[in-house]
Amino acid sequence: MASIHDLITPALIVDADALQHNLTTMAAAHPGARLRPHVKAHKCTELARRQAGQGHRTFCCATVREMIGMAAAGLGDDLLLANETLQPERLAGLEARVTVAVDSDATVDAAAAAGGAVKEVLIDVNVGLPRCGCEPTDAGRLADRARKHGLGVRGVMGYEGHAVGMDDRAVRTQLCEQAMQLLLAAHRDTGGDIISAGGTGTYDINTWANEIQAGSYALMDTAYGKLGLPFRQALWVWSSVLCVTPAYAVADCGLKSLGMDHGNPTIEGGAVWFCSDEHTTFGPDSPLRVGDRVRVVPAHIDPTIAYHERMYLVSGEQVLETWPVDLRGW
Amino acid sequence: MASIHDLITPALIVDADALQHNLTTMAAAHPGARLRPHVKAHKCTELARRQAGQGHRTFCCATVREMIGMAAAGLGDDLLLANETLQPERLAGLEARVTVAVDSDATVDAAAAAGGAVKEVLIDVNVGLPRCGCEPTDAGRLADRARKHGLGVRGVMGYEGHAVGMDDRAVRTQLCEQAMQLLLAAHRDTGGDIISAGGTGTYDINTWANEIQAGSYALMDTAYGKLGLPFRQALWVWSSVLCVTPAYAVADCGLKSLGMDHGNPTIEGGAVWFCSDEHTTFGPDSPLRVGDRVRVVPAHIDPTIAYHERMYLVSGEQVLETWPVDLRGW
Repeated sequence: MASIHDLITPALIVDADALQHNLTTMAAAHPGARLRPHVKAHKCTELARRQAGQGHRTFCCATVREMIGMAAAGLGDDLLLANETLQPERLAGLEARVTVAVDSDATVDAAAAAGGAVKEVLIDVNVGLPRCGCEPTDAGRLADRARKHGLGVRGVMGYEGHAVGMDDRAVRTQLCEQAMQLLLAAHRDTGGDIISAGGTGTYDINTWANEIQAGSYALMDTAYGKLGLPFRQALWVWSSVLCVTPAYAVADCGLKSLGMDHGNPTIEGGAVWFCSDEHTTFGPDSPLRVGDRVRVVPAHIDPTIAYHERMYLVSGEQVLETWPVDLRGW
Repeated sequence: MASIHDLITPALIVDADALQHNLTTMAAAHPGARLRPHVKAHKCTELARRQAGQGHRTFCCATVREMIGMAAAGLGDDLLLANETLQPERLAGLEARVTVAVDSDATVDAAAAAGGAVKEVLIDVNVGLPRCGCEPTDAGRLADRARKHGLGVRGVMGYEGHAVGMDDRAVRTQLCEQAMQLLLAAHRDTGGDIISAGGTGTYDINTWANEIQAGSYALMDTAYGKLGLPFRQALWVWSSVLCVTPAYAVADCGLKSLGMDHGNPTIEGGAVWFCSDEHTTFGPDSPLRVGDRVRVVPAHIDPTIAYHERMYLVSGEQVLETWPVDLRGW
């Protein structure tokens, strides 16, 4: 069996035990279809298969490419594109139950005009985050328009993205409740069975939605790590030390292997100074040698994984499996 | 011929005229081997072929994967890995002249032990940026060590990365000169023909090096755009408007299609509010409609391109060519 010391670096490594802990913890809190795992976080059908193995057969995607890849992997029981698309005809012919988020006349009409590629929609409602989603009071009208076009309306979705990352649980709870009251009001106007919302940061707070769209919980990052959730860090960027000086050391991961929008990564056994394209300069806590390897925790997991072709499932120093990050691109 | 309006978005589009202007402007300033184009910026052998067409046959890489890809593309006349590697044996068998940067006993010894995969090295000298590179006074000793191992020593390299981005040209010049005095002193101790340094921000300032390692000049970004250089913005992330409200609009590019370490991108015809994984929320200058398309200028080009599988060479609204971003990964 391969050793992690033989991997070409930088490389994504996933601790099998921590992943399993995270998956079972979430499945206990939200069994079956109560969780609609969001694949955008990991973009990996092998990891999605592990989530399906926990009993979750409904999934959430952010891109058409993710929908196509999940269907091709045989994970298409119930795929929600939780995002708008202006090219819904790209979803034609998938071996999957396909539902698409719509939030405007234009996106409803595009879905209806896609030649049967889309048969069902969710009305995407803006619940406080200035991004996609219709006004809550417009949801019923859009649902009527969709039904007139012959589309099935399965309900509503509304992501409280302005709440999920708040450090203070009381603030998170208050913002979540306000958002969900808007979503429930919209749902009264749309009908349908689904009230889809939530994320890793509100998975145990959002009791208003009937399905939770969480993704980061499986692998975690430093941003979510601050919230005191019961999920463990399970993913690292495994890096080699290229250079050591009396003041600092340099690892071979950088801006092309780490999502940087949440700031610098954290390095185990050191303090990060700065990142360049292919390097991270850091002050080590204890002496290192060129060729030593270090674990780096990304600040934000989603855009980190999107840089990598594969991730390695590991136990201690053993590489158990190699998983392609096969849902990248658009 | 395809129209840019038919592209799946987000997509990298490259303006053919602006690219040509940039390539010819740089080739006039640094003809032939005076420029060693850095492929890390674009990771695209088709674009490298255009640079070779301008007379540059020596190239600079940041990863082993880039070296392998450039050799496979027939662009291996003189490839410099301007970075340390602990797995130099991966360079074995390339149809290329291979030179590797070394900065320590460990990296010299690894190159020497790579079974002939590496025959020539450059001594990488720290000239002020806390990253890889030996102390200037240690360069001669490392060159001797390399020669004792039977390696050819072609000279020195030292990147004034702390200087290239300074807004004030006088500061940029002063820092560059100080750095290059260190590099020239090291070169006196190492011998060899090459004094390799510089970047887009110092391409017309660094008169001490005898070859310039510039990459960003070909496509540019907002960071380099502030420096008053004669290179034009030639690359955009082409995006579709998914949602329009009275206050803002949402485009379908985000943290997975834009390098974010230099901050938010710039959107033509609007002001960016914030980016999410697959969205950019912005205030448009004039009314937009769902389905309109906008051009987004990345703040930092290198980590932006590394997210994309391909780029499209365009002229006006016509797509002329599709170029794979084929040098990604490690």
